[in-house]
Amino acid sequence: MDKCARRGNFAETTIKVNAEMIHVDTVAPETRIASLTTPSLVLDAKRMRHNVARLKDHLKSLGVPLRPHLKTAKSIEIARLLMETPEGPATVSTLKEAEQFAAAGVRDILYAVGISPAKLSRVVELRRQGINISVILDSREQAEAVAAASRAAKDPIPVLIEIDSDGHRAGIKPGAKLLTEVGFVLHKRGAELRGVMTHAGGSYNKSGAEAHAADAEQERAAAVACAEQLRNAGFPCPVVSVGSTPTALFTKDLTGVTEVRAGVFAFMDLVMAGIGVCTVDDIALSVLATVIGHQKDRGLILVDAGWMAMSQDRGTSSQAVDQGHGIVCRVNGRPYTDLIMSRANQEHGLLSLRPGSTAELPYLEVGAQVSILPNHACSTAAQFDRYHVAADYIVTDVWPRFSGW
Amino acid sequence: MDKCARRGNFAETTIKVNAEMIHVDTVAPETRIASLTTPSLVLDAKRMRHNVARLKDHLKSLGVPLRPHLKTAKSIEIARLLMETPEGPATVSTLKEAEQFAAAGVRDILYAVGISPAKLSRVVELRRQGINISVILDSREQAEAVAAASRAAKDPIPVLIEIDSDGHRAGIKPGAKLLTEVGFVLHKRGAELRGVMTHAGGSYNKSGAEAHAADAEQERAAAVACAEQLRNAGFPCPVVSVGSTPTALFTKDLTGVTEVRAGVFAFMDLVMAGIGVCTVDDIALSVLATVIGHQKDRGLILVDAGWMAMSQDRGTSSQAVDQGHGIVCRVNGRPYTDLIMSRANQEHGLLSLRPGSTAELPYLEVGAQVSILPNHACSTAAQFDRYHVAADYIVTDVWPRFSGW
Repeated sequence: MDKCARRGNFAETTIKVNAEMIHVDTVAPETRIASLTTPSLVLDAKRMRHNVARLKDHLKSLGVPLRPHLKTAKSIEIARLLMETPEGPATVSTLKEAEQFAAAGVRDILYAVGISPAKLSRVVELRRQGINISVILDSREQAEAVAAASRAAKDPIPVLIEIDSDGHRAGIKPGAKLLTEVGFVLHKRGAELRGVMTHAGGSYNKSGAEAHAADAEQERAAAVACAEQLRNAGFPCPVVSVGSTPTALFTKDLTGVTEVRAGVFAFMDLVMAGIGVCTVDDIALSVLATVIGHQKDRGLILVDAGWMAMSQDRGTSSQAVDQGHGIVCRVNGRPYTDLIMSRANQEHGLLSLRPGSTAELPYLEVGAQVSILPNHACSTAAQFDRYHVAADYIVTDVWPRFSGW
Repeated sequence: MDKCARRGNFAETTIKVNAEMIHVDTVAPETRIASLTTPSLVLDAKRMRHNVARLKDHLKSLGVPLRPHLKTAKSIEIARLLMETPEGPATVSTLKEAEQFAAAGVRDILYAVGISPAKLSRVVELRRQGINISVILDSREQAEAVAAASRAAKDPIPVLIEIDSDGHRAGIKPGAKLLTEVGFVLHKRGAELRGVMTHAGGSYNKSGAEAHAADAEQERAAAVACAEQLRNAGFPCPVVSVGSTPTALFTKDLTGVTEVRAGVFAFMDLVMAGIGVCTVDDIALSVLATVIGHQKDRGLILVDAGWMAMSQDRGTSSQAVDQGHGIVCRVNGRPYTDLIMSRANQEHGLLSLRPGSTAELPYLEVGAQVSILPNHACSTAAQFDRYHVAADYIVTDVWPRFSGW
């Protein structure tokens, strides 16, 4: 008996997938959500389109193009909905993403994690294939390594210097002498100094439109000041790249900025809802699960989705409202009152009412399906190898998702 | 240019992999750890063999066979090192594991997550292929569903009734009338009542040999009492299955128990070390990472392994010593004094000294490799599609790892 027949009600004849990336063999066209095996990752196409249009419209009004971060989606089908053209521009967090998206036709790629010297051979190979891939760095050692690799390859590798605009993670501080020194190494020793970039990672810890707008201005000002510092030193700096989902959505002024990066905006998640970037109803990604038991005396409902499906991300645990491992909804996306996944083991999720709730535990029989909204779309999506794209209880597409480095 | 040539120093001619499961194309035989791309998952074969022998020897002394839980490894090569024979017995947490291991020759499988009725068709199909797969449940609804599926398939599906020995998660409480009722449904309506099982999940939250031995006795006593309850009601109960890594290693008496389950014992991890089940030097699994930058004024070293590599599991955060996202070691496995991964973003890890440390931050230049021990082997391994099996800085094998449901 073949794999398709094994699940009885599935076939694989007309699935729209990118066969180059992975083979999807378990879901038939027009499968009802109700017949999906659980746990499954479900993508609400309508909500995603709304989220994408929201950011694109905002940036259009400010006259700056989007270079979407594809690390959240890792799917060429979704990438094409986010990018301005099928060839990019795009941002990635791994060279595996760069290679996969390049193989699918994306030509303009920023690899936005500080380059390690050992990875330059893969960057050079992508450039030999005609991919306009650029890298980022924040130290003289990295700059020397990129310059040396550029000279060896007889190909000036384009570089954005990473700026630390909020003390969050990496980057050179605005005004530091190091910025000019790194610019010098890149420009004079064989690389292509293409510009500067920064990421307001600190914005994920603040709440409300005003705070996000302030962070956006801080991000913009730092990047623009550093670009000026380089230009004043006589170096080129055509690209000024900024972004994070909160700052991209709430920025009011992008003067001096040439591109904006953001990733989670397409899916949204409970962390973003918790800081006022979206509402819970905007969250386009969920995990479908099935009730497998009850512990009535303890007010628990058990489902077959644990941390292997949800991930261990507990980003809301430090927010005003802790959503546990996720908000539990009906399959149509409507939340049950106060029901969250309060604990997760590898393949078990334990649902209960939030602490202090006076709601009644809903009756959900063994076999009933629920839909769970994630803390963090990037980490929950990473637990799956495909998206079940759904509209009105019907799975309209299955989009493969890759992972790894 | 082909995929292997892309990375320059790799080839794929003599890799020992199970070609049926995944294709590994990036690592040559006798690759040095130093030449692996990062992040990579590295398995110390010597430590693993030591850990496996430790549990096997202990159980042999007590005269009870091991039914290893393969959810941690999800690798047929590792499974064969854990199982008593290439055909099993084995425990799994998903039907995907059951199907993959069955395809690789495992014949005796316990699917140890409460069965959902919709999954019974896959169980029946495996049984049609000759696989001796059994399921677990703890409710009358599930028992009725399994009995109905058994009658429809004309194949009594074997069932272990799940017992709640410590109030941790699922199961029927010892002494509850429900146990006999479920036994009745299974035995009289077409399924095969094979026995009882319990898992002392609560043992992960207690520390020390004495506490683990006490939990083991509680686990044993509950399972044996429930077996007696079923037998006294006139039902068969040939199997009495117990286990968790802490209880399996510290049990002193298994009277009445017919098999022991454990999974993480082969790899060990910081959570297990934190509760005294092993030492840090026993941990066989680590993530290889490369230094990509510094934030000297903040005492931070940045590496190219973030939560996408380590997972978001922070199991040690509630223990006496919080290990952050992992203990940082030299590539030979020797920890740097007080250096941990204190924060993780998707592809960035931030290394720093533990709070309160008086040690000096080690000098690790850009491009240097480090090895990071995980909080939880099950969740860190799940972030990768292969194990690099290593001994003395040389990768001796590459073992594929699967995921999904």
